[in-house]
Amino acid sequence: MKHRVIPAHDDQRYISPPLFLDIVMKKAEDFSEWYNEIVEKANLTDKRYPVKGMNVWTPYGWKIMQAIDSDIRREFDATNHQEVCFPLLIPEDQFAKEKEHIKGFDSEVFWVTHAGLNPLDVKLLLRPTSETAMYPMFALWVRSHADLPLKTYQIVNTFRYETKQTRAFIRVREIHFFESHTCHVDFEDAERQVKEDFDVLSKLAEKWCIPYKLLKRTDWDKFPGAFYTVGVDTLLPSGRSLQLGSIHEYKENFSRPYEIKYEDEKGEHRYVHQTTFGMSERLVGAIVAIHGDDKGLVLPPAVATVQAVIIPVLAKGETEKVSKAARELYDELKQAGVKVHIDERDVRPGAKYYDWELKGVPLRLELGLRDMEKGKVTFVRRDTGAKSLHDRQNASNEVRSMLELIQVEMLARAQKEMDEGTVTVDSLDGLPEKLLRMGWCGEERCGREIETRSDRNILGTPIEDEHFDGMCISCGRPTKTLVYIARSM
Amino acid sequence: MKHRVIPAHDDQRYISPPLFLDIVMKKAEDFSEWYNEIVEKANLTDKRYPVKGMNVWTPYGWKIMQAIDSDIRREFDATNHQEVCFPLLIPEDQFAKEKEHIKGFDSEVFWVTHAGLNPLDVKLLLRPTSETAMYPMFALWVRSHADLPLKTYQIVNTFRYETKQTRAFIRVREIHFFESHTCHVDFEDAERQVKEDFDVLSKLAEKWCIPYKLLKRTDWDKFPGAFYTVGVDTLLPSGRSLQLGSIHEYKENFSRPYEIKYEDEKGEHRYVHQTTFGMSERLVGAIVAIHGDDKGLVLPPAVATVQAVIIPVLAKGETEKVSKAARELYDELKQAGVKVHIDERDVRPGAKYYDWELKGVPLRLELGLRDMEKGKVTFVRRDTGAKSLHDRQNASNEVRSMLELIQVEMLARAQKEMDEGTVTVDSLDGLPEKLLRMGWCGEERCGREIETRSDRNILGTPIEDEHFDGMCISCGRPTKTLVYIARSM
Repeated sequence: MKHRVIPAHDDQRYISPPLFLDIVMKKAEDFSEWYNEIVEKANLTDKRYPVKGMNVWTPYGWKIMQAIDSDIRREFDATNHQEVCFPLLIPEDQFAKEKEHIKGFDSEVFWVTHAGLNPLDVKLLLRPTSETAMYPMFALWVRSHADLPLKTYQIVNTFRYETKQTRAFIRVREIHFFESHTCHVDFEDAERQVKEDFDVLSKLAEKWCIPYKLLKRTDWDKFPGAFYTVGVDTLLPSGRSLQLGSIHEYKENFSRPYEIKYEDEKGEHRYVHQTTFGMSERLVGAIVAIHGDDKGLVLPPAVATVQAVIIPVLAKGETEKVSKAARELYDELKQAGVKVHIDERDVRPGAKYYDWELKGVPLRLELGLRDMEKGKVTFVRRDTGAKSLHDRQNASNEVRSMLELIQVEMLARAQKEMDEGTVTVDSLDGLPEKLLRMGWCGEERCGREIETRSDRNILGTPIEDEHFDGMCISCGRPTKTLVYIARSM
Repeated sequence: MKHRVIPAHDDQRYISPPLFLDIVMKKAEDFSEWYNEIVEKANLTDKRYPVKGMNVWTPYGWKIMQAIDSDIRREFDATNHQEVCFPLLIPEDQFAKEKEHIKGFDSEVFWVTHAGLNPLDVKLLLRPTSETAMYPMFALWVRSHADLPLKTYQIVNTFRYETKQTRAFIRVREIHFFESHTCHVDFEDAERQVKEDFDVLSKLAEKWCIPYKLLKRTDWDKFPGAFYTVGVDTLLPSGRSLQLGSIHEYKENFSRPYEIKYEDEKGEHRYVHQTTFGMSERLVGAIVAIHGDDKGLVLPPAVATVQAVIIPVLAKGETEKVSKAARELYDELKQAGVKVHIDERDVRPGAKYYDWELKGVPLRLELGLRDMEKGKVTFVRRDTGAKSLHDRQNASNEVRSMLELIQVEMLARAQKEMDEGTVTVDSLDGLPEKLLRMGWCGEERCGREIETRSDRNILGTPIEDEHFDGMCISCGRPTKTLVYIARSM
């Protein structure tokens, strides 16, 4: 039996999973199956849609994605980016203009060849990313140096025909995607944009409680068409890395084939320098994977659709009194800007605890008669399970402080786990399943050798300065260059 | 030369059109060309994208669309609908399950036949609407009467291979689309949903200042697969009708082929009854068409991204003083919840007036030294052009009242125009280009005759009771049934 939670004065609604769903898998024992189970039982997405790798965003998952999108919009609006929305379909000839780019995507695009009953004159493809949709238009939009920088972004779905095993949020064929695209007068201004992107990312990741490293990809692993690529990599509890996004400096690599030129102050025509920043629904996957536990999701307060759930613990003969008090608390918290939900379903409190733990709601407020008489409310943290008694009178302040504390501690804990999962090694033998740090002379031959011998990918060299003075793990020559490698999720 | 408006303390940004763009066409003389010109020069969309009928949402147009989307979200959330997001691609076999439906769309869908370099085993189509994507999943989601009503909606882009001439927002091949889909225990509950949709629509249309009629389509013009269809039709200044959306009662027409069944309280299995409600980016087109004038857009305050623009009228030697006062006014209005922009560009005020008139900003606030000394601000309404002096001290209240007044008057004016553009006729000869009201006996033969002889479409019979006692315009028999006909945009 399914049920629905729609208190009259609440705007949070779900298609809830059945009550008393057991989480069978243990995160520490089989991370991969645990992940699949949590995603399904918390009802974040429905994978039963009849096209592989194209999943349905169910209400609860979609709310989390929308919270992330709105964080992104806020930060990109605040840095003077303009939101646009480009068409889905790209004509084959436009797509083919930048040679490396098409080579990189050729094997994984979906092709529209017919409309109605007739074949199309020019085949159209579903955007795998939007460079080739946007840049013909940028060539029309940019005329003079006064038009620059041009800073745009869009949030759309993109399509890639993944041949590897699909996994909800992490490897799918229809991808909910954020992409910013910027044009600049020169390389220096584009570099300033890349740094701005780093700053924006750091604010966002703090909200999402996701630790990450910025790693400059090797030349043989950069984005097709890019001058360089910086990967945004996190570490999953399985010891595998997960790329959450990437920031690219294109230099003039796209502006030349797409002829995006401007007239500078001296009247000379120059090609613009371009950058992009992309992130995807993998952010949802990372939140699930990093914070979840054997009871279900654990959502950071800044992402949670419901930050605090009130459970009235009804005593016989006094239900009216407790219900009333619960509704008062609800109203007060709502007023104070807390995303609060009151669970008035006619089931016993234990079942409700179970359900909201599965859904990852950061804070549970238990309101029973005994506490009420003492002027208290019981808080139960989802992340630590800690219970504490708080003054009812000061409840909205206490809830807000507690949510802030949870937010800070969740990030700190995740950061600590990532740090502990990262080790420096000086030999390629017997490597642990972790994020591995090692010296590299910088030569491609040694890089490829590292990848082959370790059976892992080089993620890249850190953007932030990490002092290193050692030897290339492959050739043994002294080097100050570090490289991170890992198995990827 | 393009320019950009990014005051340090403002979050409104555009890719602005050049200053001093002349609107050449007159709305009254050539509505169609005037519409195209306004859309282009106000920079709502860019039609130069290299796929016909697939336009780029530029920042200003996208903000208007997003304002409309967020109005829709608010109303549908408030009526306990749950937002979902279904995949874009639908397998051919799922699409073909409801026979009328596929017949209705067969000639206008885009087909994905290849992925990477290989042909697909099962062809996929781009959703023209999402019944056939959603209903196989609804069959999994709905089990018991306790799961009903199931009320969902999504806001996505849909795709139709239009063969008629395309027109921005009004007839495009990639369509920004809202669709709600509901399942109910029986016909009565589905009918209640249809009525709720009427109520929701009436609130929304009031915000958008769009008058409309609810017209029940003829049997030969209903949505493919529907039991009945109610069109939401407005009248454009050209005398042509524009369908803004539609509300459908499906009965069991889809639940049977898709096997969406529930167990009722007696343990019997029954098919659900379904309804849908769809609206599209045509709403933007309607706002442009109905309210715009020979100077450009006129946006209803509830839709406008910028509701009030402050133009500091700088006096020589006193620029600092006026600028400071303008920024104070800006801060005050922002504080009061007004979407305000301050135009600090280094161009003369007249050029700015021109520019913001083109963009349709409802209220212009001119702040000059002379007014300031008297403690006054000049308000200029975009809709009427009326100027008035207001106390600076009370400015934020006055601005809010004025915006409310504009909102109410814009709707009233549009309603009056629609009423005046609607005439009852008793002969099919020499018909004016208007929304025409006439008697109809209700028989298909007469209906088809009316359409042929008038060279117009029957839009349908009014949902709201309009007393009529006359004759069928075709066969002359007495009838109490009315029908509206028009040429469609």
